[in-house]
Amino acid sequence: MTFELTILGSSSAVPTSKRNLTAHVLNVHERFFLIDCGEGTQMQIRKNKIRLGKINNIFISHLHGDHIFGLFGLISTFNLLNRDTDLHIYSHPELENILNRHIEYFEKTLSFKIVYHHLKPKLNEVIYEDDKIVVETIPLKHRVPACGFKFTEKPHLRNLRKNVVQFHKIPISQIQGIREGNDFVNEDNEIISNEKLTLPPYKIRSYAYCTDTAFTEKIVPLISGVDLLFHEATYAKNLKRQAKLTSHSTSEDAAKIASMAKVKKLILGHFSARYKDVSSLVNEAREIFPNTFAAEDGEKYQIELCREE
Amino acid sequence: MTFELTILGSSSAVPTSKRNLTAHVLNVHERFFLIDCGEGTQMQIRKNKIRLGKINNIFISHLHGDHIFGLFGLISTFNLLNRDTDLHIYSHPELENILNRHIEYFEKTLSFKIVYHHLKPKLNEVIYEDDKIVVETIPLKHRVPACGFKFTEKPHLRNLRKNVVQFHKIPISQIQGIREGNDFVNEDNEIISNEKLTLPPYKIRSYAYCTDTAFTEKIVPLISGVDLLFHEATYAKNLKRQAKLTSHSTSEDAAKIASMAKVKKLILGHFSARYKDVSSLVNEAREIFPNTFAAEDGEKYQIELCREE
Repeated sequence: MTFELTILGSSSAVPTSKRNLTAHVLNVHERFFLIDCGEGTQMQIRKNKIRLGKINNIFISHLHGDHIFGLFGLISTFNLLNRDTDLHIYSHPELENILNRHIEYFEKTLSFKIVYHHLKPKLNEVIYEDDKIVVETIPLKHRVPACGFKFTEKPHLRNLRKNVVQFHKIPISQIQGIREGNDFVNEDNEIISNEKLTLPPYKIRSYAYCTDTAFTEKIVPLISGVDLLFHEATYAKNLKRQAKLTSHSTSEDAAKIASMAKVKKLILGHFSARYKDVSSLVNEAREIFPNTFAAEDGEKYQIELCREE
Repeated sequence: MTFELTILGSSSAVPTSKRNLTAHVLNVHERFFLIDCGEGTQMQIRKNKIRLGKINNIFISHLHGDHIFGLFGLISTFNLLNRDTDLHIYSHPELENILNRHIEYFEKTLSFKIVYHHLKPKLNEVIYEDDKIVVETIPLKHRVPACGFKFTEKPHLRNLRKNVVQFHKIPISQIQGIREGNDFVNEDNEIISNEKLTLPPYKIRSYAYCTDTAFTEKIVPLISGVDLLFHEATYAKNLKRQAKLTSHSTSEDAAKIASMAKVKKLILGHFSARYKDVSSLVNEAREIFPNTFAAEDGEKYQIELCREE
């Protein structure tokens, strides 16, 4: 039951010799969600040994080149590999036109179908749901329409304690109910309380991805208490003016948001290419929100399963 | 007086974890020529410590995605860095429309001018010339119009032997003529033969780039005797049929061309992603043309200066 984020690229606007352009992959129970797709994403996917064919859903925050220019090559590669599974792309509606024009010229026909899901970046709404996970949009504040994404696991059921099924002779038909919290009445009409039969369920894990954005408190309730928050920190705090001008955040902005939303862990990224060393940005953020780390290409953040108390 | 090739990408069609998509940089006397521009080229340029601002001329062999998708990000980066020098792009005319549509949507305005040079891929003609180098097209045989490029140094002048200017009291006005091969008549009307005054000039160095192409003997006279030939070898010889079907070459095809053209050194590349290890392709080629090597990303091939005999 994996819940693991892989950072594929952590630079903003232009790549550096060590940082690729923005893309993340979230692995939820072996379902791989690609979030943004800057140039070089398909190479980073390969280098990080993620199977291309496992990616069926791509979430695009906004239509700036550093977040989408990798789609051209990725789609081309899927086509060359004769992909036949539908590819779902969640983005601003205009991306459909951009990709259609591109596909028409370079691919002619595709071996697979692209299903476009047009987002309304100003709304907080559920845009994806399956039996394991829910994805919702987080309206952001940028120069063009932009939204973040929150990935939240569906609630886990309680787990049966060891050997209780055999010991109390529980019929299979009642197991689901017990995992949902029911007590059990045995053949002697004794009530066995649910607590004796089960362990508390695993906690719901969550990840929020917020880039590109200026500082905006409006997102705080939407990302409240997430296990992992990725928030852009394009600039250090001394470039606050530059951040405001370009609708980006400073490391301090990101930490304030993390602190207000009481998240568990903050990852900074989308660093301006001017920073060869981002430790000063991390240190600035840690003064406000100590559990802060810098995104590095190829790094993985796993959220372990742990039980509710 | 550098003449050095850097391989930025050596995979065909789709990248692998070790091979990026096609792009080469040729450094001729500190002028940097970019040849093809697959996705990720700007990252490879940075990783190989080539200064982006030194690239003023880009040569595109043909309009398949794996040779051009890096242009979108590269142009965007040039714009973000406020480039102001003209960028010359040599390619099939259609690229101008593709890039114009792209720039119109993503960049709006550019800080620099792109000068498009429309190639006629079926002709062998000079498309670039400066005081150091001449570039000509090599018509290739592919599924879409495609051409290779030959880079040939301009002839070097003879070099003056040590101390001859002082010893024979040669006026500055006559030095150019002597370097061109003239004898010198001194104040006593003695003729000093050119051989006594000068060393033979450096040999002209040359590089030919041939991808994508099926085997075609027509290119042999056009690349005759080059110091370095890059010829695609998408497949091993046992996939000859596949090569023919897709208008690509086998390692054997490349070696035959190198042998017929009596080139000095052959580099194979544009390898199909199916080959994790390309040593079998190199060995096959070496049976026909021993001085063969496999292109590896980040590798440099320097052609040293040496004098004519």
